[in-house]
Amino acid sequence: MPTFVEPRLPRGMRDILPQKMLLRRYVIGVIEKVFERFGFEPLQTPALELAQTLMGKYGPDAEKLMYEARHREGKEDLALRYDLTVPLSRMVGMNPELVKPFKRYQIAPVWRAERPQKGRYREFYQCDADIVGASSMLADAEIIAMIFTILSELGFKAFVTKLNNRKVLVALGEFSGVPATQTAGLYRALDKLDKIGREGVREELLKKEIPTDSVEKMLDLIALPVDDLVAWREKFRAFPRAVEGIDELEQILQFTRDMGVNPARVQIDLTMVRGLDYYTGPIFETVVTEPKIGSLTGGGRYDGLIGLFSKNSLPVTGTSVGIERIIDVMEELKMFPNNLGKTVTQVFVTVFDAERRPQSIALTTQLRAANINAEMWYDTDSLGKQLKYAAAKGIPYAVIIGPDEAAAGVVTLRDLTTGEQQQIPQAELQETVRAKLLRA
Amino acid sequence: MPTFVEPRLPRGMRDILPQKMLLRRYVIGVIEKVFERFGFEPLQTPALELAQTLMGKYGPDAEKLMYEARHREGKEDLALRYDLTVPLSRMVGMNPELVKPFKRYQIAPVWRAERPQKGRYREFYQCDADIVGASSMLADAEIIAMIFTILSELGFKAFVTKLNNRKVLVALGEFSGVPATQTAGLYRALDKLDKIGREGVREELLKKEIPTDSVEKMLDLIALPVDDLVAWREKFRAFPRAVEGIDELEQILQFTRDMGVNPARVQIDLTMVRGLDYYTGPIFETVVTEPKIGSLTGGGRYDGLIGLFSKNSLPVTGTSVGIERIIDVMEELKMFPNNLGKTVTQVFVTVFDAERRPQSIALTTQLRAANINAEMWYDTDSLGKQLKYAAAKGIPYAVIIGPDEAAAGVVTLRDLTTGEQQQIPQAELQETVRAKLLRA
Repeated sequence: MPTFVEPRLPRGMRDILPQKMLLRRYVIGVIEKVFERFGFEPLQTPALELAQTLMGKYGPDAEKLMYEARHREGKEDLALRYDLTVPLSRMVGMNPELVKPFKRYQIAPVWRAERPQKGRYREFYQCDADIVGASSMLADAEIIAMIFTILSELGFKAFVTKLNNRKVLVALGEFSGVPATQTAGLYRALDKLDKIGREGVREELLKKEIPTDSVEKMLDLIALPVDDLVAWREKFRAFPRAVEGIDELEQILQFTRDMGVNPARVQIDLTMVRGLDYYTGPIFETVVTEPKIGSLTGGGRYDGLIGLFSKNSLPVTGTSVGIERIIDVMEELKMFPNNLGKTVTQVFVTVFDAERRPQSIALTTQLRAANINAEMWYDTDSLGKQLKYAAAKGIPYAVIIGPDEAAAGVVTLRDLTTGEQQQIPQAELQETVRAKLLRA
Repeated sequence: MPTFVEPRLPRGMRDILPQKMLLRRYVIGVIEKVFERFGFEPLQTPALELAQTLMGKYGPDAEKLMYEARHREGKEDLALRYDLTVPLSRMVGMNPELVKPFKRYQIAPVWRAERPQKGRYREFYQCDADIVGASSMLADAEIIAMIFTILSELGFKAFVTKLNNRKVLVALGEFSGVPATQTAGLYRALDKLDKIGREGVREELLKKEIPTDSVEKMLDLIALPVDDLVAWREKFRAFPRAVEGIDELEQILQFTRDMGVNPARVQIDLTMVRGLDYYTGPIFETVVTEPKIGSLTGGGRYDGLIGLFSKNSLPVTGTSVGIERIIDVMEELKMFPNNLGKTVTQVFVTVFDAERRPQSIALTTQLRAANINAEMWYDTDSLGKQLKYAAAKGIPYAVIIGPDEAAAGVVTLRDLTTGEQQQIPQAELQETVRAKLLRA
């Protein structure tokens, strides 16, 4: 055994120290509660999957980012999951007896060897909620309403969901006569419409050697207002799948209204593209507009993925909530409640000297029995050193019990934020502390 | 992309479906609350560590069980963590500025390619609480008191902590004259004392070619009552480290008493051996005696491990709580609270027909706004099919709103366990449901 090993983390990995953990778990707690209020159940799948389960689902670029794993005497090729969607599909394929619709959420780490950069790590949490086995647009609408509830409860003020349908995007290619082999390029160019404008899209498409007349047809089409379902439906008369897609979007608009969602916050954008290949129906993305921090969640309907792992395909719709980004943004913008604190500990009990230590131990025990998070000092150092520790940790209150207090049957309770202190009878300690904590 | 992939899990891995997740998270919730009541803070470390961090800490047998990982273009040798203790030590080494004592807990998966067997998986949760930077036995005593609180709050009735000290075990070898190279064999034999008795231990030691007079000295020693600190201290007069170890045990006995722990439940056993090499001081193990299910938690003091990752060594004491076993045992013995339920959903809202669907949607929204977990049906199937779903999922209550109810401004609330139903005004739905849920 070596005598010294340089303590290091793998590239792109991090520890999350207690103070940050408190922020993290606040966000996760809010989201979990909303998921469950909407009837989603918790699920856990293992971090390691068979490589064959994960391969081919994300495309070769993504596979380069995958961590492969193996144990020394094992015969299986394994990999760390890259998302939570493929494991869900694998699980549903393995458990055909699951009662449908099956609504689950999972908030868990995934691993991708992406180029490390500020705020991006190679192990990060994904936070997904999906509905398996419901083809009704009510399911998609419910996902959108749920995202709105989550963002409101986290304290975001203004946000909109942008809504499109893969069926419309497919028709857009067909309508313009873009060859099937070039639709990926078409979507990629379209995705930049907001940034580079129509002229930029034209240049990009021509550079990709998409036929000129296709490009012009496309540009005519996207000159229509992106939310004018009537005009687009008229254009797409001859494309029944596109009309179906537009019908679906109208149903979602109606259902979200039925759920009390502000209609101004659900915006159709028939040019919106979302990355993942596996979407087959409505796609949605929620963007926080005030403050302008961009997309925090996205999702859509993918009716094909489970068919990869099962003889009976099943419709699925769901969303991913970008919790890592939400945590970062909320910290930057100081959106966390004031009473979250820097530590779980609510009261610190000092030790006057070895002789009086049993009293400090008893007080700590008394506080804990009253469900108050309490720490005591382990040694018999100076009171100054002990209080310095409590202040450094950010513990809000300290208890002092010296000979005078002991003789009088009281304790001194000090507010470590204001420095104020008061003497209270020992038996009333927990009630006094509880009242102060509630007021904070 | 293939058209069908057999849905399979890696060997020794499992999914945890929603119903079991509810049990799991109940246990984790109770334990977390107690950890925090004792002032332990949450910490998260990554699943992947550098191989060099993990290697050599567990011995060659353990390394065989380790999962190695790598990403295709990565240059680092990585491995999945095997426990949470080495990552803690690495983290403390990397963050010398952490305020001490540093108390953290971590409840998180670890990976070991152990031979799969009933109730044993290759990904399983470890649940650790450790105190870094406190050498006082008060820290060890606090860990024991905390374990007692956890087991009580989970509903276990009778349990004892067995207590020994590595310093005594070391002296036991020295006292008997067992050569240093053979102490591992000595401990292994001693560990079986309960099972094979003194004669068995004698045979085992002789088989290991430990000199006969050493074996006899050992057997004389362990003929002493295993909890008679006075007699052992007398024997160990000439072994100052052993005397120090016995003093430490006496301090722990005193401190646990000061914390209100029933002294009958803390038992000294100077022959108890706990597996891990890295312990250096007190070691403890908690055994549930009624029902007789054996050891559920174990821990001890390991003052050397952090020194591997840091120039300044630090004392550490801590415990591991066997939560996988606790969950299994509590399920077997039906120790979970009755109101845990099979699903997070509390109310199921049926849909009478498409025309009345907006009313069902509004009711569901109303329930959710009142923090009640509610699901609605997505389609317009028969009421029978809808209620069958709710029953299969184990949802306790269903709401029915047909034309009659709508006309009268009421809803029918059905208890799906008893079949009883009642009509209540729509506006009172959430209050009625909440009252029923509180009573359950």
